[in-house]
Amino acid sequence: MRHITLLTDFGETEGEHTVMKGVIWRILPHASIADISHVVEPQNIRHASIILERVAHYFPDETVHVVVVDPGVGTERRPIAAQFGNQFFVGPDNGVCTPLLERAEQAGEVVKIVHTDKPEYWLDDVTAIFHGRDIFSPVGAHLAKGVPLEELGTPITDIIRFHLPKPVQTDKGISGEIIHIDHFGNILTNIPRALLEPIRPVTVELNGEKIDGMVNTFGERPVGSLVALYSPHYQLMVSVVNGDAATPLNAQVGDSIQVISK
Amino acid sequence: MRHITLLTDFGETEGEHTVMKGVIWRILPHASIADISHVVEPQNIRHASIILERVAHYFPDETVHVVVVDPGVGTERRPIAAQFGNQFFVGPDNGVCTPLLERAEQAGEVVKIVHTDKPEYWLDDVTAIFHGRDIFSPVGAHLAKGVPLEELGTPITDIIRFHLPKPVQTDKGISGEIIHIDHFGNILTNIPRALLEPIRPVTVELNGEKIDGMVNTFGERPVGSLVALYSPHYQLMVSVVNGDAATPLNAQVGDSIQVISK
Amino acid sequence: MRHITLLTDFGETEGEHTVMKGVIWRILPHASIADISHVVEPQNIRHASIILERVAHYFPDETVHVVVVDPGVGTERRPIAAQFGNQFFVGPDNGVCTPLLERAEQAGEVVKIVHTDKPEYWLDDVTAIFHGRDIFSPVGAHLAKGVPLEELGTPITDIIRFHLPKPVQTDKGISGEIIHIDHFGNILTNIPRALLEPIRPVTVELNGEKIDGMVNTFGERPVGSLVALYSPHYQLMVSVVNGDAATPLNAQVGDSIQVISK
Repeated sequence: MRHITLLTDFGETEGEHTVMKGVIWRILPHASIADISHVVEPQNIRHASIILERVAHYFPDETVHVVVVDPGVGTERRPIAAQFGNQFFVGPDNGVCTPLLERAEQAGEVVKIVHTDKPEYWLDDVTAIFHGRDIFSPVGAHLAKGVPLEELGTPITDIIRFHLPKPVQTDKGISGEIIHIDHFGNILTNIPRALLEPIRPVTVELNGEKIDGMVNTFGERPVGSLVALYSPHYQLMVSVVNGDAATPLNAQVGDSIQVISK
Repeated sequence: MRHITLLTDFGETEGEHTVMKGVIWRILPHASIADISHVVEPQNIRHASIILERVAHYFPDETVHVVVVDPGVGTERRPIAAQFGNQFFVGPDNGVCTPLLERAEQAGEVVKIVHTDKPEYWLDDVTAIFHGRDIFSPVGAHLAKGVPLEELGTPITDIIRFHLPKPVQTDKGISGEIIHIDHFGNILTNIPRALLEPIRPVTVELNGEKIDGMVNTFGERPVGSLVALYSPHYQLMVSVVNGDAATPLNAQVGDSIQVISK
Repeated sequence: MRHITLLTDFGETEGEHTVMKGVIWRILPHASIADISHVVEPQNIRHASIILERVAHYFPDETVHVVVVDPGVGTERRPIAAQFGNQFFVGPDNGVCTPLLERAEQAGEVVKIVHTDKPEYWLDDVTAIFHGRDIFSPVGAHLAKGVPLEELGTPITDIIRFHLPKPVQTDKGISGEIIHIDHFGNILTNIPRALLEPIRPVTVELNGEKIDGMVNTFGERPVGSLVALYSPHYQLMVSVVNGDAATPLNAQVGDSIQVISK
């Protein structure tokens, strides 16, 4: 029996995130289900994809990740299920799985995707606006139960992917981009440790501010200090010790960030 | 082993919702427990009952729903356990289970209720103010373990039920009522699809606003549009696409809503 | 297979609390894991310790409590694992487990502590700032799987403990202290029922306010009344019925509270 995770923007007050567990347990009693988050920013597919990328590969092989941030529910957007390397994905075809897809492609791992167009794996009564309950939960449960991916729908290759900005090596170092600002005000970038580590020591430049050098952890500087360090996800992060870095730096997703080798 | 769900207004910051899992696992190790919600509006029994009704019947047959929104804790209100059709309920006798009771009655399904007055199924030390931990969790665990309902207490029939407003068919269509406003500002009504579908197309009137026709899903109208559609729970809902309908319409629970056949 | 609980200040929006479940399930598939809370006040070790004390001993014997409120992550503070009576603890050595330690000592129960310094029980790649994922989750999983505590590290006895204020018996009654204010505004004290019960009836004095007598439950007084009663955790609590007691009393953690026998 495969593990299942749930990642949605349903909030936690109305019970709609939980009904998915009921649907799954009816098909696969006592499945182990983890709630990754149900408080993704409403309809923010990027936010969901960043969380998914961070979390997915820490779960056991063949875990089924059901991801429902779905502004297009009820329109022509397709429901899909996929295998990306050793993880499964179920959700709307809206680009949210792009990081998992790219990771598998770059690693030369298996990529299989189906349009989940077989109603026998859905609930009997499918509403126009709650596919999380009516389509994605039952499809995820059948997949976790061991139904082969190919049984769940028609193979496709043309899914939506969004552009993930890549860091660029420059004469002086690396040019990257802010990809996320978390709820503490930490600024996350797309510059990976693997690229940055060889050119240290460095200066980090962002929105007119220069940060001289990097620290290993917050405890190395006094409270309130602006620091550059590796995030838990092995990417360059800019933070204020015990504080919010994004507000004073007026940092926005998409802003440029420069790393200069010293 | 039956599944268990928890639905309370305890909040998630103090650990009190989680201690219930500990109590249950001591009696039934590795029981599968789903948190429906712990952020029900404090002491809002109506809110809890609406969530419970939406969620309960999606769970496996014989799931035990432990529902503790309990302004009367420590007073004479009785603790009860019940079977309503294929679902079990455990909680204070305060009307919260009315929708499950009515559904079972209307379907001609089994209804059995007991006053859970046998301390041998409670914790040894019962406080005056935390029956969620001391009475309802252990009773729910014993029920999930397979103890017959009749063993847990004395049969009763006179439980509290609150008045659930019913929609009325009029000359022109249907007259209904707002029963809930969710945290997105969607306006939920008591007018079911089964009653509304036969008289479409319709105009929906609410607090002086007229909505011409219904949509199947949000994606059919531009952001900001006021729309009428079926909720995921098969009832008429009034929403603003990607927005809040309740505030501009000054909508309140109990307000009248009219559906006029065209 | 032992049960596992998680208690952190990671918040629930970024998925970092959930990645711990993935790490645990990779080591111990289908372990039963309960989230005690992930919304502890950021870096508030006291808050976490109070929640832990309330909850821990309601879980089955040998449950492993993984507690990560860790302002010192990446500094010299040690990761530890411990057995306190019939419960296990895993987390940073920062005093958070003091109440469990003292309870076990006072009861004459087993106390064993190790510095978890064996990287073979950690993830392969340990970051400087996310030991919750990289060290504490895998150590907790191995402990829950049955690895003996002694295998996980080097025995130590000199862990950090913080001063827990003790109530004092006075000529007139008991002198105690506020130890926590919950999110409803209830005022929790360190005066236990066992000490208070023998000297009732009493008057309670706090920040210039006198409360005459105690109630058993909120329902005994009208909404808005200031009352003294036992908390669900068997300690003196001061509350306003359906309201907030801390704000009007200007109550702070550490404030003195007097119980006068009448």
